[in-house]
Amino acid sequence: MNNIFSDRITDVPKSFIREILKVAVDEEVISFAGGLPNRDLFPVEELKKATELVFEKTGPAALQYSNSEGSIELRKFISDRYKLKLNLTIPVENILITSGSQQGLDLLGKTFLNEGDDIIIEEPGYLGAIQAFSVYKSRFNPVKVHEEGMDVEALYHVFQGRNPKLIYTVPNFQNPSGISYSEENRKAVAGILQSEKIFLIEDDPYGDLRYTGQPKSSFSQILPDKTIMLGSFSKTVVPGFRLGWIVASGDIYEKLLIAKQASDLHTNQFAQCVIAEYLAMGNFDAHVSRIKKAYDLQRKAMIMSIQKHFPANVEFTHPEGGMFLWVSLPNSISSMKLFNIAIKNKVAFVPGNPFYIGKTETNTLRLNFSNVDEATIEVGIARLGKAIEELLDGS
Amino acid sequence: MNNIFSDRITDVPKSFIREILKVAVDEEVISFAGGLPNRDLFPVEELKKATELVFEKTGPAALQYSNSEGSIELRKFISDRYKLKLNLTIPVENILITSGSQQGLDLLGKTFLNEGDDIIIEEPGYLGAIQAFSVYKSRFNPVKVHEEGMDVEALYHVFQGRNPKLIYTVPNFQNPSGISYSEENRKAVAGILQSEKIFLIEDDPYGDLRYTGQPKSSFSQILPDKTIMLGSFSKTVVPGFRLGWIVASGDIYEKLLIAKQASDLHTNQFAQCVIAEYLAMGNFDAHVSRIKKAYDLQRKAMIMSIQKHFPANVEFTHPEGGMFLWVSLPNSISSMKLFNIAIKNKVAFVPGNPFYIGKTETNTLRLNFSNVDEATIEVGIARLGKAIEELLDGS
Repeated sequence: MNNIFSDRITDVPKSFIREILKVAVDEEVISFAGGLPNRDLFPVEELKKATELVFEKTGPAALQYSNSEGSIELRKFISDRYKLKLNLTIPVENILITSGSQQGLDLLGKTFLNEGDDIIIEEPGYLGAIQAFSVYKSRFNPVKVHEEGMDVEALYHVFQGRNPKLIYTVPNFQNPSGISYSEENRKAVAGILQSEKIFLIEDDPYGDLRYTGQPKSSFSQILPDKTIMLGSFSKTVVPGFRLGWIVASGDIYEKLLIAKQASDLHTNQFAQCVIAEYLAMGNFDAHVSRIKKAYDLQRKAMIMSIQKHFPANVEFTHPEGGMFLWVSLPNSISSMKLFNIAIKNKVAFVPGNPFYIGKTETNTLRLNFSNVDEATIEVGIARLGKAIEELLDGS
Repeated sequence: MNNIFSDRITDVPKSFIREILKVAVDEEVISFAGGLPNRDLFPVEELKKATELVFEKTGPAALQYSNSEGSIELRKFISDRYKLKLNLTIPVENILITSGSQQGLDLLGKTFLNEGDDIIIEEPGYLGAIQAFSVYKSRFNPVKVHEEGMDVEALYHVFQGRNPKLIYTVPNFQNPSGISYSEENRKAVAGILQSEKIFLIEDDPYGDLRYTGQPKSSFSQILPDKTIMLGSFSKTVVPGFRLGWIVASGDIYEKLLIAKQASDLHTNQFAQCVIAEYLAMGNFDAHVSRIKKAYDLQRKAMIMSIQKHFPANVEFTHPEGGMFLWVSLPNSISSMKLFNIAIKNKVAFVPGNPFYIGKTETNTLRLNFSNVDEATIEVGIARLGKAIEELLDGS
């Protein structure tokens, strides 16, 4: 029966993370595996108020078919915020509302990628992007990232003999590693791309969640003609509404719009109205501050717990924001083996494998700190430390 | 710059209808052009109550990331309703919630179609399906439909030399023509497909909106192993929530689920909870009856107005349900020319062109009767009748 399916779908990796999460449903397991924002911080009351206002003010129009570009009020808010936060001038006409950032990735794949086209991704890289672009049978060119950003020399070498169409980046508090590109690194990356026929995707779902250090330039400022931005309300408001956006212009916007029409006509109109109403209330920045404060405490708790409970030869990143931290075990220690021991010790994480192209054994793993409170983080990291020691002793 | 884009996106037709709708924004224009349900019939108060219940009972969980399959309550309702209405046994595990039926089409294209794969579509056929499948660069094999259903002989001939993977059908009150397949026609179609390696997509957004005549069998009953069903709440509840579903089983379901994950992770969770809460209130059937009563009056008003105001040599279909009626002008009369005259006469419709593959001139047009009240239908059809006479006189 297998040849009934398209070649493309046969190649897409099933979400390893979703499989992992199934193992972690046991209530006694402390899970650092997911990528969930903390639901205790959702602005539930304000969203309830906003839905009431939408019924009162917009009524049936919020429930009807709508345009593919998205709500004009929402796009205007996004445009104004780019001006305010990054001093970027983004016309409303350049903003396309998507059903979450994940759909942004799918639309970009649809619009740009022929079978075999080269695309550069970060290594380790965001699993959702790997899945989305796999559908279009592109050829992945992974370039390593480190605490300062992308490995510039490795990036340079990709262009020797290949002509990648797209480069996918998460320059702020990357998923999965938590690293950010330094200002110098961004400039160096831009310097290499400047003369190439390539577009850079700057996916920035965590940009608002900086806990320490200075905000960095957007690639839109350093490489304006080649940058396509992706944004999302999933981490700053709620993920369940599936609301994100793409910033692009001219022909690219037009093609993305056609892809959007063909994909789902338009994004849930009611949810767009509710979020627009919520944002108009003016408490968004205060809300983001509240999230930042809580996640920062959790981040610190995780770093301190790791320093206390992990063997000294285990390395880890020091994220300045976001939701994740990346751990490297001593070479040759399999994080899949660690996973099996950890689950017995009632603690879960995501082994590094799915964040690489075609690796089945890695010594790396991702820890999420946004969805577990400080006290539980200490308990969970202690359990994980024990599991690591158990594995190291046995190896 | 053109070669920066994928081949696929270059081939997708831009929505002609959306372009048409832009011309029809003039408030004096009576529009039969859109495909909108009548918003005056939306169950606004009940949906408001349902959102309140979701905040009360589910709270933050309705706003969090969720699973790709969709809400279990919603899928259970859909399964139960198939049993009740069509005596079909559909396990909940076979139902995948989608971001509208349009996404169902996109996921089917992603999952089945390689470049050049043959697919059978109805002629005239649903534009959204043509757009969705165009993305995957399939080869369209249009088969004419008439008042009784699909042209069975033409269908048979497609298989002489070609091996289409999919056939896309809207057997009940088709968009754009309003026609339905008779029971005999369904059996004849199934008879041809039975021995072929093909899957039939039964898209049924209007199935609940039957105003006259007897309900017909689903292809799921006649051709159970080969039928994939698509459903939607857009025409029976509201379209703005973008909630539809696919019914498929086994490997096909698994592949569609992977495609869903890669496309947008999951459908808006809050909207799923609200619709599930609304459906649990138990007034859904009464609501559908109310819509049916109103649309039936509008359908009759349109047929009577056409009989009164159109020249006798203009033909039209007699839909038993749904939202559309299809008009055939005398041969060689261009519906695009008619459109230009009609707009001057302050009435709009969709010329037939976009519902065919590669036709730029047709003598056919689509009229929507769901979104205009009876009195206005009479005025609009009178205007259109005049425009037709003007064109016939001038030709």
